[in-house]
Amino acid sequence: MLYPCELLPVILPVDAMNKISPLAPKSFPEMPALPGLRLATAACGVRYHGRQDLLLVELAHGTAVAGLFTHSQMPSAPVDWCKKALLGGAAASALIVNSGNANAFVGKAGIDAVERIVETAADLFPCRPSTVFVASTGVIGEPLEDAKITAALPALKKALRDDIWKDAAQAITTTDTFPKGASRAAVIGDTQVVINGIAKGSGMIAPDMATMLAFVFTDASIPAWVLQDLLTAATAKSFNCITVDSDTSTSDTVLLFATGRGARHEAVNSADDRLLDDFRDKLDHVMLDLAHQVVRDGEGASKFVTIRVEGAADDGAARRIGLAIANSPLVKTAIAGEDANWGRIVMAVGKSGEKADRDRLAITIGGVPVAAGGAAVAGYDEAPVARHMQGAEVCIAVGVGVGEGCASVWTCDLSHGYIDINADYRT
Amino acid sequence: MLYPCELLPVILPVDAMNKISPLAPKSFPEMPALPGLRLATAACGVRYHGRQDLLLVELAHGTAVAGLFTHSQMPSAPVDWCKKALLGGAAASALIVNSGNANAFVGKAGIDAVERIVETAADLFPCRPSTVFVASTGVIGEPLEDAKITAALPALKKALRDDIWKDAAQAITTTDTFPKGASRAAVIGDTQVVINGIAKGSGMIAPDMATMLAFVFTDASIPAWVLQDLLTAATAKSFNCITVDSDTSTSDTVLLFATGRGARHEAVNSADDRLLDDFRDKLDHVMLDLAHQVVRDGEGASKFVTIRVEGAADDGAARRIGLAIANSPLVKTAIAGEDANWGRIVMAVGKSGEKADRDRLAITIGGVPVAAGGAAVAGYDEAPVARHMQGAEVCIAVGVGVGEGCASVWTCDLSHGYIDINADYRT
Repeated sequence: MLYPCELLPVILPVDAMNKISPLAPKSFPEMPALPGLRLATAACGVRYHGRQDLLLVELAHGTAVAGLFTHSQMPSAPVDWCKKALLGGAAASALIVNSGNANAFVGKAGIDAVERIVETAADLFPCRPSTVFVASTGVIGEPLEDAKITAALPALKKALRDDIWKDAAQAITTTDTFPKGASRAAVIGDTQVVINGIAKGSGMIAPDMATMLAFVFTDASIPAWVLQDLLTAATAKSFNCITVDSDTSTSDTVLLFATGRGARHEAVNSADDRLLDDFRDKLDHVMLDLAHQVVRDGEGASKFVTIRVEGAADDGAARRIGLAIANSPLVKTAIAGEDANWGRIVMAVGKSGEKADRDRLAITIGGVPVAAGGAAVAGYDEAPVARHMQGAEVCIAVGVGVGEGCASVWTCDLSHGYIDINADYRT
Repeated sequence: MLYPCELLPVILPVDAMNKISPLAPKSFPEMPALPGLRLATAACGVRYHGRQDLLLVELAHGTAVAGLFTHSQMPSAPVDWCKKALLGGAAASALIVNSGNANAFVGKAGIDAVERIVETAADLFPCRPSTVFVASTGVIGEPLEDAKITAALPALKKALRDDIWKDAAQAITTTDTFPKGASRAAVIGDTQVVINGIAKGSGMIAPDMATMLAFVFTDASIPAWVLQDLLTAATAKSFNCITVDSDTSTSDTVLLFATGRGARHEAVNSADDRLLDDFRDKLDHVMLDLAHQVVRDGEGASKFVTIRVEGAADDGAARRIGLAIANSPLVKTAIAGEDANWGRIVMAVGKSGEKADRDRLAITIGGVPVAAGGAAVAGYDEAPVARHMQGAEVCIAVGVGVGEGCASVWTCDLSHGYIDINADYRT
């Protein structure tokens, strides 16, 4: 989310608005229709003009849903609503997402706006209000003109289709430079099912849960409690392992829906059911693909950085060390400068607060050992490391020498582009 | 510290090297001679050429010392040495500080270098090795050429004087754009004593303790255990409440020395002795003055930012909320852009992990209420806020509405200058 709380109209420089990230995928993926789900988008003018800014997803009766949300102490009204709705049976009939206004930090007006949207949708479909899920992204602190949304819903309902995934992904973006989607086929027993996901996010991205908006859908038949466990596990390895700028939005939301309208498969009753082995794997792929796309659209990003940490006390410690490296402004600026400044990686490991053995620390960059045994590798060949740093994909691996814990995290560099987007656009 | 681990010769752009921070004090303060202490500096060429890079401080027999050090898991060899030396009686005869090389992350070579320096000094004075304190700042991961230092010590000893505080402050700098000193007179009973301090630091500054090098001296007679308590309390309110970039050095060191060679005063036996009321106050002033100067020299800084947090669960929670705001790249870039983007302050409070009441949150900028009761202040006058943001000193106050805890923290903005200094200097 780029602009929480703009107090004046925002005029983004044209190049910051339009330039597609150099790290973007070549194209939006093919995403098949998903039984039990239809989509529609509209330009309702919440904030943006001349673009789609509203998404309606219709979900077949009996759709199960699971969710994870920002840990922010300042959650948006839609986050509050979704948490409450999940407690009401974890069934879903519709999802409504708007971009341009986060409906956050506007006092009671926020929840009033959500309730008017939800009730209008519940009347329209019709369905129970607690089966209508909502998400909003954009400005913080300005009342959401929900009448623009409720007025658009009847026409949206008439326009529902099953083949507009790219439009859907586009409608939920704010400062994203490309729409984000991912799709995989999975098998449950002998039955093929679909997993489709869309996401948005390019700044204010850090893993204190979800880190942006992501909506993942499957036509499999999976009960809500199983879905919640699957989502929690997949998020831990994907959205909770990425960071752009260490900042955490008030609106972060990940929802996973299962329509149950695909081909019939054997019943599944727990997330570790072996029937779900392939589904878990493909769900991980979809979530990680979306998470990586968010990093690839990091504000000002010119490098996609993979940080692998091994030898930590446990996996959680490895992840925290990885994030300390990934969030270090000195590491991130060194990467922007194509500088194999491993001293800053040592510094970041040291500040993580996690156990690490200075005298066994080992670092490789692009696969080349640069530090080992607590000191520089004597006379290492810098040429391949320098070449690696000049590429768009940077790989750093760190062994901290105290245990078996490991984790991968992903981030981007900190460049002038980030400052341009976040500081300069009003001057 | 700007360049931990440069693998190639560093050529800083001239403007980044020479331009004094716009937030610098007008001049170096008057600092009186301090009985029991003499100083000398030399250009020994550890890394820099044509400038002083070595400081020797001679301390009278019986000088007590206290210290606090980086919490980094990757401490430099001098940090390891000082911690050990403090356990050996907390008495000090000499302090030796070099700039240009941090003597960090070089394996056993690091502690060997320290031991050669310390033993040379111990022979020279003569004194016990455990009374020789050392600190190094600069490159990480390159062996320190300690022979350059030991060779310089005899001449340094002959050159000792009591009136070269500015030279001393200059010799310990790395990328600092100005030398940092502070001095206050204090009374203990009816007796006047002196407190003088010098510090260095401009990047890799975050409060996980000391956050750079700072050396504070007094001619008062204060036992080491009292000194340690005084230092801990003063650091909590000063160096532990500043941040430039959230990064923490491997070398952070704060040492407080008491020579006991000033005018005689009543004996003091505990840090909360009422006899020390004025001394504590003036020590706080010196430490805070130095800490503020470090922020004012933050890499690329164009704004000095004071963040006051009130209404937190306790003072520690208030400090952590303040630091979450101060370390947020989105808040810092908004300040650089002179944008009163209080939505990002809401975000940062939310991500701190500390208890805060969204619906009682209140924010003022430059004293003007912009948010209250969990929403924007309706129709607030933006003109004075915009003017305030355009100044060089920005004040943000946040009430989080859950308790009585309060704290102040200080930071600077995140500007293109930071990226210039930390990313671009090799391209």
